[in-house]
Amino acid sequence: MNTQTKSKHIPRATIQRLATYVQVLEHFARDSVEVISSNPLAEACGVNGSQVRKDLAYFGEFGIRGVGYRVQPLIESIKSSLGVNRDWRMALIGVGNLGKALLNHSEFRNRGFKIVAIFDCDPFKIGEIVHGLEVYCTRDLKDKVRLLGIEIGVISTPPERAQRAAQHLMDAGITSILNYAPARLKTPENVHVEYVDFFHYLYALAFNHQQQP
Amino acid sequence: MNTQTKSKHIPRATIQRLATYVQVLEHFARDSVEVISSNPLAEACGVNGSQVRKDLAYFGEFGIRGVGYRVQPLIESIKSSLGVNRDWRMALIGVGNLGKALLNHSEFRNRGFKIVAIFDCDPFKIGEIVHGLEVYCTRDLKDKVRLLGIEIGVISTPPERAQRAAQHLMDAGITSILNYAPARLKTPENVHVEYVDFFHYLYALAFNHQQQP
Repeated sequence: MNTQTKSKHIPRATIQRLATYVQVLEHFARDSVEVISSNPLAEACGVNGSQVRKDLAYFGEFGIRGVGYRVQPLIESIKSSLGVNRDWRMALIGVGNLGKALLNHSEFRNRGFKIVAIFDCDPFKIGEIVHGLEVYCTRDLKDKVRLLGIEIGVISTPPERAQRAAQHLMDAGITSILNYAPARLKTPENVHVEYVDFFHYLYALAFNHQQQP
Repeated sequence: MNTQTKSKHIPRATIQRLATYVQVLEHFARDSVEVISSNPLAEACGVNGSQVRKDLAYFGEFGIRGVGYRVQPLIESIKSSLGVNRDWRMALIGVGNLGKALLNHSEFRNRGFKIVAIFDCDPFKIGEIVHGLEVYCTRDLKDKVRLLGIEIGVISTPPERAQRAAQHLMDAGITSILNYAPARLKTPENVHVEYVDFFHYLYALAFNHQQQP
């Protein structure tokens, strides 16, 4: 099977659901579940069964007709298709409360997304040790990216410093950015930015709340 | 116009985009832009122009044919449809790094989502003042919810404590929960949980990164 070719056609919304399936399947795997059918999987993921079956049609070889999916091989196949079956080395810019919370978030490391260097432009923070990492000056980003094989940049600065942080990352050759700052970034087409936006969740909550009888 | 009736038919993905439009339109409003056409709006939001025009068809009366949308009335109409044109009072459970980062996130307050009480089950934290709020014991949640008119609960506990936090919220009559803990919650049908899941962003970055030539 040529995962690479196949996966080029996975739509974005499917990637989001696949990410959820992986997390939920890993829970089942930790509970020693070996085979799971689509309905309980769907229920645990908060989607409907037919959607799960459609999404997992890409990974059809792990289904056992009338029984379900083999959990561990399915996890590995999804992760391989998404490119998350290996470690990714990340740089974090902005070591405030949010940055520290991200550093402290063991799920990142557990899933192979490793923050290996942290940066700030505040001279009082530079040199400090936070969760075992020395805070570097943002000007040293380019050298550290090369030295440490960093591929993803995480921005957790205040909004007004986000664009400058992005510029430092791009100058260092980083083309994949996770932006937690509530600011849109100006980036060229070859740079992929994911915005972690808390507000649409709150908007969805508020919208549903007001619809309640 | 009967916003309530109309908005019942806004699909979830549209809500997400509307949340982005509001944020981007507010930026334009701060820059004193009075009218904007769909293409620059689309570009700033990272979606295509025809999508913007389709989404904003709900709010058609704010379009001026051949010119664009009147920014301020459009913002107000979208917010009113989503139910975010008023303040929402929130309780936060779990005053660790992530909880503190959320408390420190001024955009919440700026957008009317106000954390008015904070809770933890750690006796060493109870009574501490964090960002001007006293940490209450989670057992006092029910009383505080009633007293302070809280409508939304925010969970920022470690994953293994998330279900218990959700139970406290539900016991207090809260039916809208924003869950930052990396754990799925068991809740009855009338409770609406939004999961703030960082991983699908990272998965999307990794997937796109591996597709690069």
